[in-house]
Amino acid sequence: MSKPFGLVIHGGAGVILRANLTPEMQAKYNASLTLARDTGYAILENGGTSLDAVVAAIKVLEDDPLFNAGKGAVLNANGMCELDSAIMDGKTLSAGAVAGIKHIKNPITLARDVMEKSPHVFLVGEGAEIFAKQLGYSFVDNTYFQTELRKKQLERAKQLEVEKKTSASASLHEKAGFVTVPDGYFIQTSHYGTVGCVALDKAGNLAAGTSTGGMTNKKYGRVGDSPLIGAGTYASNATCAVSATGWGEYFIRVVLARDIAAQMEYKDTPLTQAAQNSLNKVAQLGGDGGLIAIDHNGNITMPFNSPGMYRGYRLSDGRNGIAIFEQ
Amino acid sequence: MSKPFGLVIHGGAGVILRANLTPEMQAKYNASLTLARDTGYAILENGGTSLDAVVAAIKVLEDDPLFNAGKGAVLNANGMCELDSAIMDGKTLSAGAVAGIKHIKNPITLARDVMEKSPHVFLVGEGAEIFAKQLGYSFVDNTYFQTELRKKQLERAKQLEVEKKTSASASLHEKAGFVTVPDGYFIQTSHYGTVGCVALDKAGNLAAGTSTGGMTNKKYGRVGDSPLIGAGTYASNATCAVSATGWGEYFIRVVLARDIAAQMEYKDTPLTQAAQNSLNKVAQLGGDGGLIAIDHNGNITMPFNSPGMYRGYRLSDGRNGIAIFEQ
Repeated sequence: MSKPFGLVIHGGAGVILRANLTPEMQAKYNASLTLARDTGYAILENGGTSLDAVVAAIKVLEDDPLFNAGKGAVLNANGMCELDSAIMDGKTLSAGAVAGIKHIKNPITLARDVMEKSPHVFLVGEGAEIFAKQLGYSFVDNTYFQTELRKKQLERAKQLEVEKKTSASASLHEKAGFVTVPDGYFIQTSHYGTVGCVALDKAGNLAAGTSTGGMTNKKYGRVGDSPLIGAGTYASNATCAVSATGWGEYFIRVVLARDIAAQMEYKDTPLTQAAQNSLNKVAQLGGDGGLIAIDHNGNITMPFNSPGMYRGYRLSDGRNGIAIFEQ
Repeated sequence: MSKPFGLVIHGGAGVILRANLTPEMQAKYNASLTLARDTGYAILENGGTSLDAVVAAIKVLEDDPLFNAGKGAVLNANGMCELDSAIMDGKTLSAGAVAGIKHIKNPITLARDVMEKSPHVFLVGEGAEIFAKQLGYSFVDNTYFQTELRKKQLERAKQLEVEKKTSASASLHEKAGFVTVPDGYFIQTSHYGTVGCVALDKAGNLAAGTSTGGMTNKKYGRVGDSPLIGAGTYASNATCAVSATGWGEYFIRVVLARDIAAQMEYKDTPLTQAAQNSLNKVAQLGGDGGLIAIDHNGNITMPFNSPGMYRGYRLSDGRNGIAIFEQ
């Protein structure tokens, strides 16, 4: 019997309500998820590496304005897109990550270059782009990433912020100018929509990658879980590969991706149960979101505790699917 | 019998050689470590929280130019100090972290304010300082942090960089301008010297904190393990509190601090064994450094695989010590 291979992708979890998602929009999401998934799968099928598959699938989602990564990322408080991404190689435990990227079309490729072409794991802000320049990256204007939908979402978030600041019932956080509640405006909420991919290749190597624009109206140089190795992104051939999406602060506190792998490593917990346990920890703290994971045997899981999560999978045994709503 | 309490501190691990450390210098380190330790311990003894003890001990080390944190931090490639810090509350799993700080005297206090006064966990660069300004922090000029010793270390690192770039045996990384080998200049190596504290208070609550200037001659906005929750800093009342110091990239890849806690949580591994296992993973990947940890029963461990680690501890059962060399 040949060894199993395959991949899982996500395009974010959050308040995705059937009522707000027209059949046309749903078809667009399905088509884009299918393209990303099958682009990655073709690489695996042809004997390519899980790293190559992860990068290829995520590039499709970064290039598609439907998702909060690359083109179509949410806008920060200054109206700019600031992108974060990470990748991890389960074979070597090598990892690369970038945060606060403003001019690199595909942050996932820069994360991979940090992993492979620098001795560092995590480069932030302008410094990361200086590194990219030295590697010969071409730069795009930040307007390349910005879409009309995201501009409207930012306007709405700023309105909400004012309303909350001046509300009698405003919390200390809200008075300080933080809008932390999902805004629910136009299908996708303000701080979800991250994309990611986890893959197992024919050689038995796992990889995980994540890419995001973070939260609408984010300020103060906020970095979420996506680029943090162990929180939003993790892969080890000994256990599994994980990419998370959701309210990043809670995923950081739970160190979610590594927590799933740790249960497998130290307690022999099966992947699905381990992932659910870790997501339950997020929920207990008050957070929400979801994750995708694949283990070294080709088992997959895609749990979420938000109303929806854009996701897709394709495995060498023929199983495949694209979904947005119910698990 | 009253419940145990106490704390452990570190002032960095690295190539600390007896031959390079004069009795006078050793006495200075001992005095500073003792002051930091006893400042934190007094808070615990008086019924204060582990968070307060961690912040107080780390402030002493940040204010002392001997250590690579706050005043006396190493210089980046542009001759500036860029500071990273994190704190975690084991009771609530709340956490706060900052990176790339240039004008806040005590980064550990800003990390704590991120935890307690923002809904976020991780704020980076100028944004983090804008947040500080809104909280009324006074700013110091970056020259406050800079010392003559660190300027000489930077000069030496830049010389080494040129030598390595032009060396026939230079690796790809070295040709790209990365000096990754310890420089060994003046006692402390170029990328060690982080400070940290872990504490258990009378109420049974654990906390961990870490503060660093990172690597001498760092560029590209490099962020190490110190401010990354789960890598260099982690605390959970269910298990233990950990603060790491060493070659950060390896600690990130191992997700070291959470890995120690995970072994206790999922495999009932005792603290000392768990810490050694995780440090062995760092060594297997080629990294070095050390860590301090305390568990919810007041057990402590301070392993390192570098020639030395500045450290101190004091426990309610009377045990205490200050050390630099052998374990």
